[in-house]
Amino acid sequence: MPLRAFVGADAHFNIKGTGTFCLGTPQVEASFFSLPMSFHDATRLLVLALGEAQVRTDEASRFAASFDNSRFSFMPDAVVQPRDEADVAHTLRLANAHHVPLTIRGAGSGCAGGAAPLRGGWVLQLAHWRGIEVDSAASLAIVQPGALTGDIDAEAAKHGLFYPPDPSSVKYCSIGGNIATNAGGLRAAKYGVCRDYIYGLEGFLPTGEFVRWGGAVRKCVSGYNIKDLWIGSEGTLGIITKAVLKLLPRPLARHTFLLACESDERALEAAKALLAQHVVPSVLEFLDTQTVTCAERRNGRPLFQESEMGGLTQAAVLLVELDGHPASVAEDVQRVRTWAKQSARIYRETGDSAEAERLWNIRRTCSQAMFLLGNAKLNEDVVVPLSGYVPLLQFTREIMARTGLATPTFGHAADGNFHIHIMYDRDDPRQCKQAEEGIRLMMGKVVALGGVITGEHGIGITKSPFLRLQHTGAEINAMQSIKHALDPNGILAPGQIFEVTNIWDLRPVKVSLPWDKH
Amino acid sequence: MPLRAFVGADAHFNIKGTGTFCLGTPQVEASFFSLPMSFHDATRLLVLALGEAQVRTDEASRFAASFDNSRFSFMPDAVVQPRDEADVAHTLRLANAHHVPLTIRGAGSGCAGGAAPLRGGWVLQLAHWRGIEVDSAASLAIVQPGALTGDIDAEAAKHGLFYPPDPSSVKYCSIGGNIATNAGGLRAAKYGVCRDYIYGLEGFLPTGEFVRWGGAVRKCVSGYNIKDLWIGSEGTLGIITKAVLKLLPRPLARHTFLLACESDERALEAAKALLAQHVVPSVLEFLDTQTVTCAERRNGRPLFQESEMGGLTQAAVLLVELDGHPASVAEDVQRVRTWAKQSARIYRETGDSAEAERLWNIRRTCSQAMFLLGNAKLNEDVVVPLSGYVPLLQFTREIMARTGLATPTFGHAADGNFHIHIMYDRDDPRQCKQAEEGIRLMMGKVVALGGVITGEHGIGITKSPFLRLQHTGAEINAMQSIKHALDPNGILAPGQIFEVTNIWDLRPVKVSLPWDKH
Repeated sequence: MPLRAFVGADAHFNIKGTGTFCLGTPQVEASFFSLPMSFHDATRLLVLALGEAQVRTDEASRFAASFDNSRFSFMPDAVVQPRDEADVAHTLRLANAHHVPLTIRGAGSGCAGGAAPLRGGWVLQLAHWRGIEVDSAASLAIVQPGALTGDIDAEAAKHGLFYPPDPSSVKYCSIGGNIATNAGGLRAAKYGVCRDYIYGLEGFLPTGEFVRWGGAVRKCVSGYNIKDLWIGSEGTLGIITKAVLKLLPRPLARHTFLLACESDERALEAAKALLAQHVVPSVLEFLDTQTVTCAERRNGRPLFQESEMGGLTQAAVLLVELDGHPASVAEDVQRVRTWAKQSARIYRETGDSAEAERLWNIRRTCSQAMFLLGNAKLNEDVVVPLSGYVPLLQFTREIMARTGLATPTFGHAADGNFHIHIMYDRDDPRQCKQAEEGIRLMMGKVVALGGVITGEHGIGITKSPFLRLQHTGAEINAMQSIKHALDPNGILAPGQIFEVTNIWDLRPVKVSLPWDKH
Repeated sequence: MPLRAFVGADAHFNIKGTGTFCLGTPQVEASFFSLPMSFHDATRLLVLALGEAQVRTDEASRFAASFDNSRFSFMPDAVVQPRDEADVAHTLRLANAHHVPLTIRGAGSGCAGGAAPLRGGWVLQLAHWRGIEVDSAASLAIVQPGALTGDIDAEAAKHGLFYPPDPSSVKYCSIGGNIATNAGGLRAAKYGVCRDYIYGLEGFLPTGEFVRWGGAVRKCVSGYNIKDLWIGSEGTLGIITKAVLKLLPRPLARHTFLLACESDERALEAAKALLAQHVVPSVLEFLDTQTVTCAERRNGRPLFQESEMGGLTQAAVLLVELDGHPASVAEDVQRVRTWAKQSARIYRETGDSAEAERLWNIRRTCSQAMFLLGNAKLNEDVVVPLSGYVPLLQFTREIMARTGLATPTFGHAADGNFHIHIMYDRDDPRQCKQAEEGIRLMMGKVVALGGVITGEHGIGITKSPFLRLQHTGAEINAMQSIKHALDPNGILAPGQIFEVTNIWDLRPVKVSLPWDKH
């Protein structure tokens, strides 16, 4: 039976500094499931306004909406499935009138706990709003927030068009969540992130007014750019009900290289050398030796034979993909081949998509393979400038040496967005403590290297302990003053981003999620 | 002698709705040039803090800083030239303590009056901060706000790199102003606008604290995206002292087409047909028949001979440029050539840059040529969706038919950003009134077509009468609540954007500016 977070009688309490959520056994928690009166009354009014089918209060529905991919569960009081914009407006009106926290939920595949209703209240479920309308002549798509990112690209493809941002959960994640976290992905160095593909947003202010920022227009500088403020604000500044996306012509050619390099440092230096040539690969993935070793163990075979590697038993990997016009890809292939010969112990390459998929296998399996090194992982998505690539990687190994915990790292070497991990045994309190300390040191190092603590996951609750490593008090005050200006009642996702949740004290729920096998 | 705006004894007055600035003769105004005591005292303190060389109060310096390219002059009380960030911090501290309005100024080439110190106070001049540092390996540039946009691209070019945004004032405008207005330009449909090239900003909050948003990193989703809120906020939410820009590999090939089409409608339909093929030209400029006729008159010769045009005496023009990898340009040239043959009465094309410059001549001269049609122009930079191209153009002619005033229009047909004009005689009160009414109707039409009232100039003061056509009360309240949250004392550029300035009642100063001949 899953553990659930405690929601106190007064859900408007304000945790400053190092707020802690007490966890008990389900039996103990059960006594707290009776809702605080105000929420209960408000929920009844909501049912009256929207109808019972739209407002679910059964435990199964509430539990399913209580966590995201970070698996930290906080039970909401009700789950709202709006039929239309009017239902959203009703919900916001009641939430403001009764001070009910409201947390927006799409596919629930976020990694930072942004969809977890930290203070209970209502979850606004938008996953069923999946409309996608491609305007081929204008190279645009108009989409609803629940549309899956992969579905949008598939619709675009029917018109020879392309929606480039590709978080690794692309088959499962919804565009609303992508916008909320400004999701990136593997192709971001060439094609940019979600933000670069949003021409317009419409939806609701936290106070309930319908608003529209931008539109089906390619330029707009009328008034403040609240569109881009909404993007990446993790559902705390507004509710997105529609988005206008930019589409590109679909690249016609693709060529893939897989390189085995002698060491992490050699691989990273090679990546830097390629970028210094001003080659812009669509993908430039780095997998450190720890990651490669795990994936090889999970796959039950080595990536390259030892004989091919000239006796090298451990390798770091670079996966490079070029895409675009066939003639320009062909020319870049020449440059990358020359570079690969200089940089790798051995490499493979292909222009065939089935063969490319085989080269991709190690990248697709590496994230799950890490669980061979521990039953829990701290998983961060930091970004460092080019100058920080090698120092960051070396620091992960320093942490490994200090703690004895594995620190497999992979990531997007063209944009410096590295997924660093600490693997540990969650049933070993000493390892938990070491992992926590290790990740704090890593985050400090990232900031010292001129980097940022999150490139595509967002702060949510899981990065909240590090926000003050990244930003000064003045910066955070500016952000919070904006939150207060747009959401004076603190309705949308209270507790997210700015208040420190000691995630070390929480235990994730044990659930199997659709994307786990990938 | 130029007319100047009235600055009342209490410069903190708050004009709501339809604020009017009274204009008198210079003699009458002179009596108001003695500063309100608080500003005078504050200016003395500023001189003490920064030194006399940094704070100019002579009339010539103040006049030079009193207007931008819109030429509406509002005299400041002093012009501050900070040596360094500490001077900026000092200035902000004093401005906040004494409630002195502070307006930021770069090259002064803005078109919307955003650099005009509407309420007097101090102008913070940053044009002398021109540092540009290119990091070739990382494809980035770190620049100071006064760096000229053209200089940045020229520095990038030394490394085979490219800063794409190219407002037509590219040789004169500074990057700080480009960021403040999210400047676009001719290449925006392919390469995007200024916003798409900003990885990081640093500078000061209106209240004086130093802050940094983003950095030399390609992904960032840590906290709210105040970077993109600053971009396009026209100097009202912060002072930018440094920016990190993204650079691209420089395109190696370029091919240019100039088409003469039978009518405005035929030219616009042709542009749409090209875009529907998912060709992405770097430039796709449209010039309507009125614009072409003016430019031909100014140049003293027709663009094409009547015989070449099969008897057509008036043509609309499309200027198309393809750039990129030579092989992909070559392939697109085939497609564009086929399209040009179908779409134009006659066209020219070239891959030679000197010859291309000749094809560009009509575009480069058309803006000034319009003054053959009237001694004043209302100049708007609206954006409409693809579906609005033809209706917008037809509406400009409807306005012409109604008012008898010329309405030459040109613009960026790949992104729907059209520069619509009404030419009139500023010494004829009836024409002034007709022009005002005409432009209001145009703006209403733009919004009705799903467009926006400004794509690259910003609201400033010149578009302030139309802001409420574009945005609902809720949207404007949200924007103003952010302004109030970040600038509680209303220091930065008060009166800009949100308060209506009846520019019809103002007379521009007659000055010659460096970019006038272009």
